[in-house]
Order: sequence, then structure tokens, then C-alpha cells
Amino acid sequence: RLPLSVIAGPCQLESRDHALFLAERLLVACQKARVGFVFKASFDKANRTSTHGKRGPGMEAGLEMLSSVKAELGVPVLTDVHLPNQCPPVAEVADALQIPAFLCRQTDLLLAAAATDRPVNVKKGQFLAPWDMQNVVEKLVVEGNSQILLTERGTSFGYNTLVTDMRALPQLAELGCPVIMDATHAVQMPGGQGRASGGQREFAPVLARAAVAVGVAGVFVEAHQDPDNAPSDGPNMIPIDDMGSLLSDLAALDAVAKARSFPETCS
Amino acid sequence: RLPLSVIAGPCQLESRDHALFLAERLLVACQKARVGFVFKASFDKANRTSTHGKRGPGMEAGLEMLSSVKAELGVPVLTDVHLPNQCPPVAEVADALQIPAFLCRQTDLLLAAAATDRPVNVKKGQFLAPWDMQNVVEKLVVEGNSQILLTERGTSFGYNTLVTDMRALPQLAELGCPVIMDATHAVQMPGGQGRASGGQREFAPVLARAAVAVGVAGVFVEAHQDPDNAPSDGPNMIPIDDMGSLLSDLAALDAVAKARSFPETCS
Amino acid sequence: RLPLSVIAGPCQLESRDHALFLAERLLVACQKARVGFVFKASFDKANRTSTHGKRGPGMEAGLEMLSSVKAELGVPVLTDVHLPNQCPPVAEVADALQIPAFLCRQTDLLLAAAATDRPVNVKKGQFLAPWDMQNVVEKLVVEGNSQILLTERGTSFGYNTLVTDMRALPQLAELGCPVIMDATHAVQMPGGQGRASGGQREFAPVLARAAVAVGVAGVFVEAHQDPDNAPSDGPNMIPIDDMGSLLSDLAALDAVAKARSFPETCS
Amino acid sequence: RLPLSVIAGPCQLESRDHALFLAERLLVACQKARVGFVFKASFDKANRTSTHGKRGPGMEAGLEMLSSVKAELGVPVLTDVHLPNQCPPVAEVADALQIPAFLCRQTDLLLAAAATDRPVNVKKGQFLAPWDMQNVVEKLVVEGNSQILLTERGTSFGYNTLVTDMRALPQLAELGCPVIMDATHAVQMPGGQGRASGGQREFAPVLARAAVAVGVAGVFVEAHQDPDNAPSDGPNMIPIDDMGSLLSDLAALDAVAKARSFPETCS
Repeated sequence: RLPLSVIAGPCQLESRDHALFLAERLLVACQKARVGFVFKASFDKANRTSTHGKRGPGMEAGLEMLSSVKAELGVPVLTDVHLPNQCPPVAEVADALQIPAFLCRQTDLLLAAAATDRPVNVKKGQFLAPWDMQNVVEKLVVEGNSQILLTERGTSFGYNTLVTDMRALPQLAELGCPVIMDATHAVQMPGGQGRASGGQREFAPVLARAAVAVGVAGVFVEAHQDPDNAPSDGPNMIPIDDMGSLLSDLAALDAVAKARSFPETCS
Repeated sequence: RLPLSVIAGPCQLESRDHALFLAERLLVACQKARVGFVFKASFDKANRTSTHGKRGPGMEAGLEMLSSVKAELGVPVLTDVHLPNQCPPVAEVADALQIPAFLCRQTDLLLAAAATDRPVNVKKGQFLAPWDMQNVVEKLVVEGNSQILLTERGTSFGYNTLVTDMRALPQLAELGCPVIMDATHAVQMPGGQGRASGGQREFAPVLARAAVAVGVAGVFVEAHQDPDNAPSDGPNMIPIDDMGSLLSDLAALDAVAKARSFPETCS
Repeated sequence: RLPLSVIAGPCQLESRDHALFLAERLLVACQKARVGFVFKASFDKANRTSTHGKRGPGMEAGLEMLSSVKAELGVPVLTDVHLPNQCPPVAEVADALQIPAFLCRQTDLLLAAAATDRPVNVKKGQFLAPWDMQNVVEKLVVEGNSQILLTERGTSFGYNTLVTDMRALPQLAELGCPVIMDATHAVQMPGGQGRASGGQREFAPVLARAAVAVGVAGVFVEAHQDPDNAPSDGPNMIPIDDMGSLLSDLAALDAVAKARSFPETCS
Repeated sequence: RLPLSVIAGPCQLESRDHALFLAERLLVACQKARVGFVFKASFDKANRTSTHGKRGPGMEAGLEMLSSVKAELGVPVLTDVHLPNQCPPVAEVADALQIPAFLCRQTDLLLAAAATDRPVNVKKGQFLAPWDMQNVVEKLVVEGNSQILLTERGTSFGYNTLVTDMRALPQLAELGCPVIMDATHAVQMPGGQGRASGGQREFAPVLARAAVAVGVAGVFVEAHQDPDNAPSDGPNMIPIDDMGSLLSDLAALDAVAKARSFPETCS
């Protein structure tokens, strides 16, 4: 059983320099904590709460920024796709493709992502039970791709609130895929600020710790040097200066978890 | 205040003859109950629970079937779109475009639908609060389209279950748009049959009656001559033979509701 | 099928004169709308959100007030019990006993209420599914009492929020008991004001109309001449001046519902 | 910060010998794992799902059994109370009193428990938000008792299902009380077996591990030598033979958590 991997980055790409700056900070923190690192950032926020939110640099410019991160730091990069025709060009740069939660049942998008032969990380829809992801996995497998990651990012719980059911982690693991806990999206308060989603940044470490103790392959966190002024997801992102301490905590818990091979999460 | 309109049809297009057969049966039932009628059917089920489900005839063949219904019966038709580039061709045939619930926050799809200048019916996502639809409405309005319908189709309530909050109807009406109650999707049990969604057909009339008494512009129902063998949504569709009685009940309740102009729903 | 009955009154007893004043106003409104009337008020609010809330006059003084209402206006009265030993003295005055929602699974309270041979109205716990009430009904029936009313008053939906599932009404009716819709407690926002529950008074008529159109035996509403200054439940109570119009609406919808004997609610 | 305490025992008292047998097994396991131990068992299950469920030996006989456990093993014992008048006699034997979740807002029961000057463990109602417990705490504090434990045992999540929100643990800690995670009741499926609650015993360790990694004062677990034949809560109880391994896991995670004094849980 491999030690923890961390998928981390800003919510959206802002500039080449910003991507490199954050990626390097995160790489150093992950190396210090001895956890794996994959850089994640979005070139387009295609489902912003409102049209008042910034969407990002677009696919072409975004892929160039991700290329720079790969080339200069040698770290794998992951980004999300929103339309089937984005999958082939994205797969030329990204080491892994991600399917957003709202889109996790869009068959054509899943098939196009699977067809790239890149690993595909699917976020479980806020409207799905863990076991419903079996059908999502099958949509990828029928296209011949079995490099599948499944990410928990919270489930609808009344209005403007998500809850993370820790039972979902072993239930997803039972589908035979590595499981990731997305600790920062899971503390979103969807639509909670009227024209933007709110968030409870202070609880992201809580969910991350809980998930690592349950037993997961990785943790997904969005981080930023100035979350309050980030173009998206600010309320739930972790300040980059707090990442070292968080990763150290998670690595210590992961060491206990992996040494004991908890039966519920041994897929 | 106009009397009730009914958006009805099979879940997916099966054939030209089948579309005409159902549309005619529904038209007769609506005329008898003196309610408006819009024929609805999908050319593609783009987010089936699993790949084992049938998806429909595709856009080109589907639009031909819808054209036939318009031409032969003179009824308006509505169908749903899944990708931005489907909006222009669909708008050449369909009198109204529909945005599926899972996709109700995909900005590019909303903008493309709005740009057709056709009325757009947006289904409220199962993961959204009623008031979150304000931002969705704005995405259409900024594109210059204010012919917007908002449809309630249930909200996530634990796993594999939806609940319909009747308060959502006046809350949506407050956004200034006619409100539709989708009585058959709201009784779906998402993923409830493993490889397909279950449903509680017997409760669709219950939700329809409740919504009409609250006060709505219209009701959306999927109907079929043989729901148990329909290619999709069978468990929650209403048998076509039951539509006459249901529409008569709804018209009687609507007469009370519209005569009294309930203040909560007077947008 | 009997026309609608209305169980109505202030949340808690305030004084003999106040009880008589409200009961008379409600009686007149019910007579005008040709619906049945049962006066309801509590002598003790035993589970106030906080100790800062007023609890009422206590059992002895409260029962005297209820006796006055019975004697002077000739209307049946209903009140709630919280401990098994309250049931016998309450049953000497009250025409029906009510079990609060939080207590609907307390076996000894149910048995003691059943043993009085008075009709028992059980509020469905906010934490129970409709079908879970089968076991509650059985607890009363084993004690030999089959005069049972079941009341829907909303279900937990995330934090500080209730939702009313209209499917619950026919599901409760299937248990063989008359079903009541508690329209004012169902719009409570439990704990929503910090030291007291909030409420959405404006949606109580919405839920009442919906329930009557589904088909119910009765509606439960709390009303007050000055809800904003009432000692409890103010945010969700209906101003007494609005009752005439509401009851007229409900009676009109009930006439449609009862004439058609909706199959889902014919227990 | 103290190491983890474990409140454990069968769901209900079965006999003196059985109580002693289980208490000794649990004591040994707790000592081996170096965690604290409090024996818990109920003398009356006052809110069984149905009358078909066994209720226990009653207060008098039950308190005798608990006395034996105290006397023979020297361990503190905790039991739950259901009516105000049970508090004084129970407090003569029990080292701590517990308020059941359904009853956590019954003011008189809280006041009577507080008046005993014994520590009071209040289970958070399935229908309450974590912050709603502030008012519950105040009900105890006004009576002069500040030895309060707060226990998370899951929150209503749709029908027949509970979900545990790990954010609740630091939110409860913020109220200034030690926080306990009830890992076996939180995996109940209320009413899920028709005449009894179901449960997902396999996920109790998952929730326990998660909570300990978040940071809690203690864990509550029901255990039994033969859960499938236990008189209550069988589906969610942990086999006594599995307790050693579970406690060892929890102690290892607790050592990490307590060494790091996670800021969210330092009340």
C-alpha cells in the first residue's frame, strides 16, 4: 500500500508565474511530508455559480501553463474537462483528466475521457450515493480504460450545505479504484454567498484527517497564497502557508493507517 | 392568469409513429381537460444511469420526428439539449429548449440556449436550493433572453431519493418566471434499481395535485402506453390511459387556484 | 368522506380569556368555511429550544382553561402530553390527546395515552420515515385504542430546516388512520434563531393547500392575534385575521379533493 | 490532553452475569490499549422501534446489575434516563447519566439530570445541528451542573439513514465540553428492518477512526459476544472479539491526534 498522494493547486489557473509559484511551494511541502504530489488547476470554470465569477484563461492558454509546470518542476499535472471534444487536446498535456461532479453521469464526456488512455479522476456527484458510482466506473471500463480514481467531495444535505459521509470512502474503495478525499470542495456551501459559493475553510483539515484515518489513496486540496482574493473557491481554499503543517498531520495519520491496512479500504 | 399548461410526452423518442401516437393521445386528453399542451421528448438521454440504458435516436433523426409532430398535429414541441453546439440546430425545430437538471449550471450551455431566442425551460438541479436559480436566470438574461421557465423536479434527500419541497414553487415564482412542476421525474429514485433509476409512479399524481393547488403555470409529466417496457424512466412514467383522469383532476384544482390568485405564486 | 377538519389554536395557553377569545374567532372562521373545528393549545412547552422560552401555565391551570373553552363554546379540545402520568388527568378534560413529534417513539407515553381511550393524535417525528409510523400505530393498538390520528409536521432536511414530503400523506393514510397536515410546525426552522426556532409563516398556506389537494382528513394550524409577540412559535403562526381567507381556500380545494376520492388517500 | 476514553457495553442489560462478563472483557481490552473505560448499559429501552422489541430488566433490577459491575470490577458505570423521576435513584448508582438523543430537548429531564450533580452525557438529537446543542448545554448549566459530555450519534439523512458530519465534532467542542463519538448508533439504519432498526456494523470502526483523527475525548461503542442474537441494536454492535483490534487502532490514531493538539478540537 502506497503512502498518501496529494492532488493540490489553486482552483483556477491565473498565470504561468502563479502556477509555477504555487506548484513549487506545494512540491516542497509534499516532499517534506514525504507524500506524493500531483498539481491540479482548471483552465475553465465552466459551471460558476453566477456569470459574475471569473472563468479562467481558457483551454489553450491553460494547457501552456500546465506544460510549464510539468517541464520546469517535473511534476505530474491534472486538470478537468467539461466537453467531450476537450479530452484529446487536454490529454496531450495533462497526466490525468478529471470529470467534474455535476458532469459525472454525462456518458459522452466519460467515454471521451476514457478514450484518451490517461488516468481519469471522477468526482462523485453531490446527488449520488457511493454505490451509484459503479455505473460510472463501468462507463469508463467499457471504453477500455481502467485507470480510474474516484473522489468524494460531499453530498447534498439540505439547502446550500454538503455533508461528507465517511462510509463513502470504503464503499468507493469496494469498486476497485483508489479513493481520493477532496477536502476543500467538501466544505463548500454551494450558493451560500448569493452570487458565489461560501465555504468553511477551517473544516477542510478536519475532513482530510478523518479521511486519512479511514484510509484513502490520496487527498485533494485547493490552496492559495491569498484565498480571500482568489478568483474562485476562496472561502474553502487552504492558505499555502498552512499546507506544511496540514501535510505533516496527514502523513502521520497515514503512516498509522497504511501500516494497519484497514480491511474496509483494502481494494 | 392563464389556465394550466401541460408539458408531456414519452421520456425518449422511439420512432416517428410512436411520437405521433403518443402526441395525439396527449393532445386529445389535454383538449378534453381544457389545459394547454406542449409535446416533449428527448432525442438523446445523455446521462443514463448506466451504459446499459438506451439513449434514443440521436439529434438528427430525433428532430425529424419532432418536426412530424409539429406538422401533423400543430402542437408546440420541446426537447432538451446537452452540449452548446446542439442549441442552434435544435432551435430550428423545437419551440422551446430544455436544460437538464444536472447541467443547469453549465454556463456555455445556458448561453448557447439563450442565444437561440427560443424559450428556455431550465430544470432546477437536484443539488440546488430554489433561490440558487436566481444566478441561472441571470446567465440567460445577460444573453438577452427572458423567456424563461423554471422547473422543479425534486431535490436530493439522502441516498437514492428525491423530495419535492412545495415551498420551492413560490420561491421560484419570485424570480419572475413561470414555474413548472415535473411530477414524474420528482418521483424518481435515482440509481434505485442498480443499473437504472427506480421510481414511484403512484406518487406522480400526488405531487402534481399538490403543485397545482400551490399554484403553478404548468405541469410536466412523462407518459407512455406501456411504461414497464419503455426504454427509459418506465418506473416513474404515467400510463397514457390514466392521463385523462389525472388531467381532469388537475384542471379542477387549477380552476380553484387560478380563480383565487394565490399571493405566493403571483409573479 | 367527511369534509376537512381544522385543529387550531395558539401554540401555548396564555390565559382563560385569551383562549376563549382565540377559540371563538377560530370557531366563527371554521363555521363560515364549513369545516370542522377542534381547539388546540398546550399547557406546557416541555421541549423549548432554550430555557429562555416561556413554557405555559402548567397542567392544572391549563386544563381549567381548556374546560372553559369546552363549556362556553361547546367545541372539542385537544392538548399534548409529555409524561405518562399526565395522560389520565388530561383525558378527563381533553377530547383528544396529542403525542409530540420528539416523543412519538416513547413507548410508555404511547401506552398511557392509548389507555385513556381518548383519540390520540401522534405527530410523526422529524427523524422518521412515513412507514416507520406503522410501529407507532401498533403501540397504540396493542393497548386497545384504535382511534388514531397521524400528523405530518415536516422531516429533517439538513440543519435547521424541515421539508414536507407530500408522498408522506398517502403513505400515512395507508396505515389506516386519518391524516392531518400540520402546516405551521412544518415551516419551522428548528433552532434557526439561535435561542428559538425560526419559521416561515408565509409558506404555511402553501403547505396547507398542497396537502388538502393531495387529500387529508384535516389541517393543523397555530394562529394568534399577534404572532410576533406570541410566547412561542411566533415566526410560524398565522395571524388570526388571515384565517378566514385561508380556510375559504382550503375548503374550496377540499371540495374538489373529496368529490374525487383520490385513490392514494382513501384509507 | 487526556488519552482517549471508551464508553462501552451491551445495548441493554441482560443479566448480572452477562454484564460482568462483558464488562470484564471490555476492561481488559481497554487496559491493553491503554485507553480509559466506562461501562454503559441500559436498564430500559424506552423508545424501541416496535413493541416487539425487548425493553430490559427495568430500573431497580438494572441498577443492581450496574452496582455489581462497579463493586466487582471497580469501573465507573453510565446509564441512560428517560423520565425526570428516574434521575435521583439512578444517580445513586451510576457515575454518569445519559440523556437519549430523542429526549435531548426535554427540559425537565435535563434539569433533573443536572440536579443530581453527576456528569451528564447528552446525545445530540438526530434532528439537531451541532450548534443547537448550545441551548441544551445551557439548560444543564442553569441548574448548576457543568460536567457535561456531548455525544455525536448521527443526523437524519433522508429516510431510514443517518449520516455523521465530522465537522460536528469541533463544533461541539467549541461549546466547551468533551466530545464523544458514538460509533455504533451512528451506523444505525433507523426503522430499516421494518420492526427494528437495521445497522451497518462494518462501518462503526470507520466512523470511530475518523472521529479519533479529528480529535475527540472519547468513543462510545456497543459490543456483544453475539450481536446477531442480542436483544437490541444487534445489527450495529461490534462483536466483543473485534474490540481489541479496534481499540488498538484507535489508540494509535489518538496518540497522533493528542500529540498534535489539533486546534479545531482544543476546547
